[in-house]
Amino acid sequence: MEKKPISRYPIPELSELPEDIRQKIEDVSEKAGFIPNIFLALAHRPDEFRAFFSYHDAIMEKESEGLSKAEREMIVVATSARNECQYCVIAHGAILRIRAKNPLIADQIACNYRKADLSARQTAMLDYAMKISQNAQAVNDADIELLEEHGFDQDDIWDIGSISAFFGLSNRLVNMSSMRTNDEFYLMGRQPYVK
Amino acid sequence: MEKKPISRYPIPELSELPEDIRQKIEDVSEKAGFIPNIFLALAHRPDEFRAFFSYHDAIMEKESEGLSKAEREMIVVATSARNECQYCVIAHGAILRIRAKNPLIADQIACNYRKADLSARQTAMLDYAMKISQNAQAVNDADIELLEEHGFDQDDIWDIGSISAFFGLSNRLVNMSSMRTNDEFYLMGRQPYVK
Amino acid sequence: MEKKPISRYPIPELSELPEDIRQKIEDVSEKAGFIPNIFLALAHRPDEFRAFFSYHDAIMEKESEGLSKAEREMIVVATSARNECQYCVIAHGAILRIRAKNPLIADQIACNYRKADLSARQTAMLDYAMKISQNAQAVNDADIELLEEHGFDQDDIWDIGSISAFFGLSNRLVNMSSMRTNDEFYLMGRQPYVK
Amino acid sequence: MEKKPISRYPIPELSELPEDIRQKIEDVSEKAGFIPNIFLALAHRPDEFRAFFSYHDAIMEKESEGLSKAEREMIVVATSARNECQYCVIAHGAILRIRAKNPLIADQIACNYRKADLSARQTAMLDYAMKISQNAQAVNDADIELLEEHGFDQDDIWDIGSISAFFGLSNRLVNMSSMRTNDEFYLMGRQPYVK
Amino acid sequence: MEKKPISRYPIPELSELPEDIRQKIEDVSEKAGFIPNIFLALAHRPDEFRAFFSYHDAIMEKESEGLSKAEREMIVVATSARNECQYCVIAHGAILRIRAKNPLIADQIACNYRKADLSARQTAMLDYAMKISQNAQAVNDADIELLEEHGFDQDDIWDIGSISAFFGLSNRLVNMSSMRTNDEFYLMGRQPYVK
Amino acid sequence: MEKKPISRYPIPELSELPEDIRQKIEDVSEKAGFIPNIFLALAHRPDEFRAFFSYHDAIMEKESEGLSKAEREMIVVATSARNECQYCVIAHGAILRIRAKNPLIADQIACNYRKADLSARQTAMLDYAMKISQNAQAVNDADIELLEEHGFDQDDIWDIGSISAFFGLSNRLVNMSSMRTNDEFYLMGRQPYVK
Repeated sequence: MEKKPISRYPIPELSELPEDIRQKIEDVSEKAGFIPNIFLALAHRPDEFRAFFSYHDAIMEKESEGLSKAEREMIVVATSARNECQYCVIAHGAILRIRAKNPLIADQIACNYRKADLSARQTAMLDYAMKISQNAQAVNDADIELLEEHGFDQDDIWDIGSISAFFGLSNRLVNMSSMRTNDEFYLMGRQPYVK
Repeated sequence: MEKKPISRYPIPELSELPEDIRQKIEDVSEKAGFIPNIFLALAHRPDEFRAFFSYHDAIMEKESEGLSKAEREMIVVATSARNECQYCVIAHGAILRIRAKNPLIADQIACNYRKADLSARQTAMLDYAMKISQNAQAVNDADIELLEEHGFDQDDIWDIGSISAFFGLSNRLVNMSSMRTNDEFYLMGRQPYVK
Repeated sequence: MEKKPISRYPIPELSELPEDIRQKIEDVSEKAGFIPNIFLALAHRPDEFRAFFSYHDAIMEKESEGLSKAEREMIVVATSARNECQYCVIAHGAILRIRAKNPLIADQIACNYRKADLSARQTAMLDYAMKISQNAQAVNDADIELLEEHGFDQDDIWDIGSISAFFGLSNRLVNMSSMRTNDEFYLMGRQPYVK
Repeated sequence: MEKKPISRYPIPELSELPEDIRQKIEDVSEKAGFIPNIFLALAHRPDEFRAFFSYHDAIMEKESEGLSKAEREMIVVATSARNECQYCVIAHGAILRIRAKNPLIADQIACNYRKADLSARQTAMLDYAMKISQNAQAVNDADIELLEEHGFDQDDIWDIGSISAFFGLSNRLVNMSSMRTNDEFYLMGRQPYVK
Repeated sequence: MEKKPISRYPIPELSELPEDIRQKIEDVSEKAGFIPNIFLALAHRPDEFRAFFSYHDAIMEKESEGLSKAEREMIVVATSARNECQYCVIAHGAILRIRAKNPLIADQIACNYRKADLSARQTAMLDYAMKISQNAQAVNDADIELLEEHGFDQDDIWDIGSISAFFGLSNRLVNMSSMRTNDEFYLMGRQPYVK
Repeated sequence: MEKKPISRYPIPELSELPEDIRQKIEDVSEKAGFIPNIFLALAHRPDEFRAFFSYHDAIMEKESEGLSKAEREMIVVATSARNECQYCVIAHGAILRIRAKNPLIADQIACNYRKADLSARQTAMLDYAMKISQNAQAVNDADIELLEEHGFDQDDIWDIGSISAFFGLSNRLVNMSSMRTNDEFYLMGRQPYVK
C-alpha cells in the first residue's frame, strides 16, 4: 500500500507561516528530531494552532504532586484509544513510554487500561477520564468522592477531566482531517530501561 | 428548591484576577449586561481561560460566505444538546435566536434538529457536526462529498467539524464542574422580530 | 426557511370530525387560546384520539400527595427530551413552567435533569422515569426500594413509570408524523413569577 | 423454583371491579378459556385499563388490505422482543401463530426477524417498526418512501408505527410491574396446521 | 412464504464427508431422530467442524456440582437471545426444556431472563454470562466475588464464561451463514412433565 | 507497579500436562523462543486447549489466493482491538508486523483501521469482520455482495467471518481470566524491513 498523506487538508510551507508558529515548529523539530505532523496539520489555521497548543501546554506541561507528567499521558492514551484516534494513541503512547520509563505501559493502556500494570489509584483516574469522555453529563458527587478517597485533590480532578476533554477535541480534529502519524513515534521508548 | 451554585469549583474575586482576564470579563459584562458564568467558572485557571476563549473566538467570531454566524451557533446548540450540556444549550440558544432573528429555532434544534425549520443544506451541516461529535473515527470521503454537494467548501467543513469538536470540550468542562446557567439567557431573543 | 407543516398526515376539517372530538378540540382551544397541534394531528383517527387523551388525562390530570402535577410534567419533559420529541418537550415544557411557577425549570430538565434545580427526591423520580424509558427490562427491586426511601408509595411509582411509558408512545407518534409544535408554546410561562 | 406472582402490584377481586371492566374480563376469559394476566394486572387502574384496551383494539382488531391481522401481530412480536417483554412476546407470539396459521413464525421473529420466513415486504415493515421503537427521532422521508415502494399506503404506515409505539408502552408497563405470562400461551398454536 | 434454505453455503452430501464426521452426524441423527442443521452447515469445513464440536462437548457435556446441564443450557439460551441467534435459541431452548423438565423456562429466559422463574443464584449466573457476552473487557474482581457469594467455585465461573464466549462464536457462525433452524426443535419438550 | 500475574487461574506445571499438550507447548516455545501465555493459561483445561488450538490453526494457518496470512492477522487485530483484548492485540499485532513485513500496520489497525495504510479491499474485509463482531445478527446479502465486488469468494468470506467470530471467543477468554501478555511480543517485528 502507498502511504496515506499527512492530512486531508493542505500543509503550508514553513516559510509561509507566521513567525511565532514557524518558531514553535522549529523548536519542536529540534527537540524531537522531526516535526510531529499535528504541528503541520494545524498550521493552516494560525489562531486555532496557537490556542490549541496553549491549551495543551497549560494542562500537559505541568506536574503536580497529585498527577505526574506520565500520569497525564496515561489519560491521553486511554481517552484517545476509546475515541479511536491513531495519531494521539501512537504519538502520546511514545511520550508515555518515555515519561513512565516503561516500554509496555502505553500498549497496555491503549488496549484495555483495566488490565494494565497500574495502581488502583491510577485505574480510578482513568475510570473518571473515561466517564468524562463518554458520559460527562452523568458525572456526580460520588465520582468526585471516589477520586478524593484515592488522594486526588480538586485541582487534580480538574486536570484529569480537562485532559480527557481537551484530547476529545484533539481526537476529533485528527479524525476529521485523517491526520497521519509520523513513523518515528512507533518505535520511540520501546527499548527496555536500565534500572 | 434552592438554586445550585455557579460551579463545583470556587469562583475567584474579579480583583484577584490577572489584568487581561479581568478586562475580558468586564468587556463581556458591559456588552451582555451581566457576566456569563463560564467566564467566572474558568477564571481560576488563567492559561486555560485564555486558550479557551482564543479558540472560541477563532471559530465563532468569524463569518464566511459558506457559514454564517447564526449557522455556527446552530452547530453549538445541536452538539451541546446531544452532550446534555445545560449551559451551552441555553446560553448559545439565546445567541442563536438573536443571530438568526428567529425566536423558535434554538428550541427546535435542541429538541430534534432533524425536525427543525432548516434547509436541507443546514440539516446536512448538523448531520456532519453530530458525526464529529458521536462517531468522528468513522468520518470518511462520502461525508465530505455530501457536504460539498451542498456547497460547503473545505474551510467550511473544517469549521463545522472544529466547532462541534471544540464545544465537545466545552460541554465536558461544564458538566464536570456542574456549571450553572445564568438566568438571563433563558428569555433572551424570544420576542418575535418585526420583519 | 419556510415553516414545516403541522403533520406528515392530512389534518381533517373540524366540521368533519365526530361530535365528541370536535367538542374536545373546542374546549382545549377555548382554554389555551389556540388548538395544540397534537389534537389536530391525531384527529384523523378518532378511536385512537379518544384512547390517547383518555390515557393522558388519567395519568396527568390527577394530583396525589406523592406526585404533584408539576412533577408529572417534569417526567414528561425529561422523557421526551431523551426521545428527542420536539412537540412534547416544548409544549409540556410550557405547562411545566406554569405548573411549577418556575420559568427556568423546563429548559434545565430538557438539557440535563441531573443538573437542574431539583430535590434529591425529584432527581430519583426522573432517574426511574429514564430507566423505564431506556432500559425497562432491567427494572428491579432495588429501583423500587430506592424510590420508597424517597417517600414514593406504590401508586406514585406506577404513575412515574406509566407517564414515562405513555409519553414514549406519544414521542414516537410525534416523530413518525413529523408533528409541528405550535409557536405559542415557546414563550408561555417564561415571565418571572411574583412571589 | 417457585413461580413468580402475576404482578408486583395487587390484583383486585373481579367482584370489586367496575361493571364494564368485569364484563370485558369475562368476555376475554370465555373466548380464551382463561384470563390473560394483563387484564388482571391493569384492573387496579380502571381508567388506564379502559384507555389501554381501547387503544389496543383500535389498532389491532382491524384488518386492512395492506396490513393483515397476522402482520400486525408480527410487529408486536418483533417490537416486544427488542424491548425484552416476556408477556407480549409469548402471548402475542401465540396469537401470531394462530392468525398466521404458522407454528414457527413467532419464534423466528422473536429471535431474529431478519432471518424469519418473511417476504421482503414484511421485513421492510418490521425494519420500520424497529426504527420507530429504537430511533423514532430519525425517521425521515426515505423510510416512508421505502415502505411505499413495498406497497404500503399512508394508513398502513401509520398503523405500523402506531403498533410499534403502543406496544412500546405495553412492554414498559409489563416490565415495570414484572407481569407474569400465563402458562397457557406457551403451547397455543404450536400444532402443525393441516393445509 | 417459501421456507428459507439451511444455509447460505452449500451442504455436502453425507457420502462425501470424512468418515469421522459422517459417523458423528449419523450418531446425532439416531439419537435426535433428525439431523440438526448445524451439523450439516459446518460439514463443508471438516477441521472447523471437529474443533467446534470438541469445544462444545468439553463445556456442555459435563455436569459439575456447581453447574448442572440444565443450567449450562440456560446460559446458551440467554447469550444467544442477546445475540439474536435464531438457531441457538430455538434448538438449545428445546434442550433446556428437556434437561430442566420445565416447558416454560426456555421462552422465559429468551425473552427476559431477569423475569424468569430462576433462583437468585441462577440470575447472577446469567448476569455474568451477559457481561462476558456484552462487556467482557470490564469483568473485574467484584464480578467474581459476587459469583463466589452465590456458591460458584473457580471452575464453575470458568465454565459460565466459556459457555457464553463459545456460543458467541456459534451465534456469529449461524448469523453469517443464515443457518436455518430445524422445524423439529420448536415443539420439543413443551408438553408438561408429570411430577 | 508490580507486574500482574499470567492469569486469574492457576498455571499447571508443564510436567503435569498431558503429553500432547506438553509437546505442543514445547514446539511453540522452541519456535518463538518463549511460551506465549495463552498456551499456559488454557492448559488447565486440556480438552478446551486442544479444541481451541485446532480451531485456531484451521482458520489461521492456511493461506488462500483471496486471503493471505497477513490479512488474517489484520482481522484478528481489528476485532481484538474493538473487544479491548490486550493479549490478542499485542501478540497478534507482533505476528501481523512480521507476516506483513510492515512495522507500522498493527498499531494503525489497532487504533483505527479505517485510517490505516490499507487497500479499499482490505478495508472492506475489516468492515465485514467488525460487523460480524458487533452486529452479526444484521448481516445480509448486501454485505456479501460488497465483498464479492472486491474479489472475495465464498470461502474467503467464511474465513473472514470465522476469524472474527473465533477471536471474539478468544478475546472473552482472555478478558475473563485477566490473561497477561508476554513482554516479548511488544517489540517483535518493529524494526524496519530491508526491501
